[in-house]
Amino acid sequence: MAAPKFEDLRINGTRLWGSLMELAAIGATDKGGVCRLALTDLDKRGRDLVVSWAHAAGMTVTVDKIGNVFMRRAGRNNALPPIMTGSHIDTQPTGGKFDGNYGVLAGIEVVRTLDDHHIETEAPIEVAFWTNEEGSRFVPVMMGSGVFAHAFSLATAYAATDVAGLTVKDELTRIGYVGAEEPGDHPIGAYFETHIEQGPVLEDHDITIGVVTGVLGIRWYDCTVTGMEAHAGPTPMALRKDALQVATRLMQEVVAIAHRHPPHGRGTVGMVQVHPNSRNVIPGRVKFSIDLRNSTDAIVDAMGAEIHAIAAELATTSGLPIQIEQVSHYPAQSFHAECVEAVATAAGRLGYSNMPVVSGAGHDAVYMAKLAPSGMIFIPCKDGISHNEIEDAKPEHITAGCNVLLHAMLERAKIV
Amino acid sequence: MAAPKFEDLRINGTRLWGSLMELAAIGATDKGGVCRLALTDLDKRGRDLVVSWAHAAGMTVTVDKIGNVFMRRAGRNNALPPIMTGSHIDTQPTGGKFDGNYGVLAGIEVVRTLDDHHIETEAPIEVAFWTNEEGSRFVPVMMGSGVFAHAFSLATAYAATDVAGLTVKDELTRIGYVGAEEPGDHPIGAYFETHIEQGPVLEDHDITIGVVTGVLGIRWYDCTVTGMEAHAGPTPMALRKDALQVATRLMQEVVAIAHRHPPHGRGTVGMVQVHPNSRNVIPGRVKFSIDLRNSTDAIVDAMGAEIHAIAAELATTSGLPIQIEQVSHYPAQSFHAECVEAVATAAGRLGYSNMPVVSGAGHDAVYMAKLAPSGMIFIPCKDGISHNEIEDAKPEHITAGCNVLLHAMLERAKIV
Repeated sequence: MAAPKFEDLRINGTRLWGSLMELAAIGATDKGGVCRLALTDLDKRGRDLVVSWAHAAGMTVTVDKIGNVFMRRAGRNNALPPIMTGSHIDTQPTGGKFDGNYGVLAGIEVVRTLDDHHIETEAPIEVAFWTNEEGSRFVPVMMGSGVFAHAFSLATAYAATDVAGLTVKDELTRIGYVGAEEPGDHPIGAYFETHIEQGPVLEDHDITIGVVTGVLGIRWYDCTVTGMEAHAGPTPMALRKDALQVATRLMQEVVAIAHRHPPHGRGTVGMVQVHPNSRNVIPGRVKFSIDLRNSTDAIVDAMGAEIHAIAAELATTSGLPIQIEQVSHYPAQSFHAECVEAVATAAGRLGYSNMPVVSGAGHDAVYMAKLAPSGMIFIPCKDGISHNEIEDAKPEHITAGCNVLLHAMLERAKIV
Repeated sequence: MAAPKFEDLRINGTRLWGSLMELAAIGATDKGGVCRLALTDLDKRGRDLVVSWAHAAGMTVTVDKIGNVFMRRAGRNNALPPIMTGSHIDTQPTGGKFDGNYGVLAGIEVVRTLDDHHIETEAPIEVAFWTNEEGSRFVPVMMGSGVFAHAFSLATAYAATDVAGLTVKDELTRIGYVGAEEPGDHPIGAYFETHIEQGPVLEDHDITIGVVTGVLGIRWYDCTVTGMEAHAGPTPMALRKDALQVATRLMQEVVAIAHRHPPHGRGTVGMVQVHPNSRNVIPGRVKFSIDLRNSTDAIVDAMGAEIHAIAAELATTSGLPIQIEQVSHYPAQSFHAECVEAVATAAGRLGYSNMPVVSGAGHDAVYMAKLAPSGMIFIPCKDGISHNEIEDAKPEHITAGCNVLLHAMLERAKIV
């Protein structure tokens, strides 16, 4: 059988779905989700299964010192850097079947499809899975790709401990995934990552493919308002120093600031601690988190400046001290124009509805974008929900995203 | 030595302060407070000490079945119902030296003063201490006076358990304070209670004596706003169902409503639970307490109706369900005009600055007011703080409040 023409080439959606379900059985939860935390026995079983599929597809497998796994299908010119795809297979404690896993198995399915049709590519194809993307068990998140991109050191990652005090180094050794390769010592020609959107935009617009143009910049702050705790009964309104009343005004402003910076502004207060948190005591101290995001660092910085200015004014008018401390900061990252274009072109050629989107969440692709031309492909997920056992995606979208990946990778890798 | 004229009669402030400090040594904490929870060994030691002082002052002591203790100084006409004062000697876990204890020992000091001057009263004088006013170890609060006033049954009180599962009945038996008297089977001619203000009003006005006109009515609600939890990054502002943003608007309104109902309106959100309370997750559910108070039940009801109406409107405009459930309700209580007048007259005669105040907190006197003409005397406490180990009061205010008590009680009991 002759290989179909490039534009007629399609992946096998049934086979991909079957592999997703088989991998999801490892660590399956009663509610239909997956709990397969990084570097656990279950993670080892998941890794071993994916590696066995790579071997079955004739790929060679290498592992680096932080446990990132690279599964390689040779090209005609193996001196060329590989066209790579990948993601992660570790999950949240109450994770779903698709987050991360889809990106890895979509890569395996691309290789299987090329094998089906005996298609040789000019550049090699590689499928990677990165260690501990979720960061649920060990911080920092996106650990494997972060070490690979020299965002932080291997020693830092090795020393990270879980709540039981076990280190990444020891757990990685225990499950047998400390490789010989120096992290980062691995050229990449281009990188694509397929992922569920983890948000509601595509579903809301009834669009199949999100052409990801970049990842939002993020600033995380802790804000503390200090008042004076007092008995709710005997303390007249005029004599109160109610930390919660000042804090709630600032919480309103976090959202208002995001609305003032459309279309990509995000403002979230996710965590609130009230002290002493007693029904009949006026709160003496309220601590809460602020999460600001936008498409460029300049806009995120402007949003941060606004919240600081409003807090300063509120502190003056209320007389209550307000402290804002930045706790984390992730720069915005634009994807490479050629990779973005390759995704858009592939989606258009395949006849899938598509739109440019930004990623509000971090992904391994953010680190890869610092090393090589990179892009991402989003597909809708049900109700925009992820990091939840009810996370779900439609088989036709899973198939569509993988077809786009196939075409985008082939455009970069070149068919011989 | 002839007795001084009525208007020249004064208590012995040094002796009263000494007794307060001696009682405060039982359960004293490192930070200068007192931890003497109801029906513990420490409570027994405190009770025994006060009873020994009563015996030393020639008083007779009776105990009722809920452990309320009545210490009686005979009058000339013992058929008359006693003029009573009292309070409680149990404390909060991080309580102070004065809350409750002052009201009991001020009564003992009144008797000692009468003894000093060989003054006989027409009606008998009684000093009571009520079991478990604080409610820290066993609920309901104001347990002894509540059973006495038939607000709830002796069986209900007996069955209350602490966190270790011990019952009031067993603990009361263990410390030897189950008396023979039926609770409530004890006539009262009039009741006065001296107490630290537990609020900042007197200190703020630099006033020595608060003439308490009544106790605020209280409504307690639990409010739950239900949104949809979602990832803070990928979810655009327009597609969010942020429970916290709706909840914080309602929290602002709780305070605004109190300001709209001066001078006695109080509105407090003391307790907040955010779910899942994670930095990068939009809150899916927020539960918080609402505490509304005012001087009459009609006004408190109007405040409650306002918060319900605002919540209904917010639920409609936001699309997020808001549930408000009333969890407790304490009616407002006015004190008896003659008792209020007796306190004001005494303060004026003694030359103490004084002003009418309301009590924002509950006291045993609230239950007594249902049984007999009652009144309360407040003195300032430092920074309005109570239920705290740093609770403090000035010796001159302690003395002043006790002098007012003496004069008010004598006005009702009549000097022979």
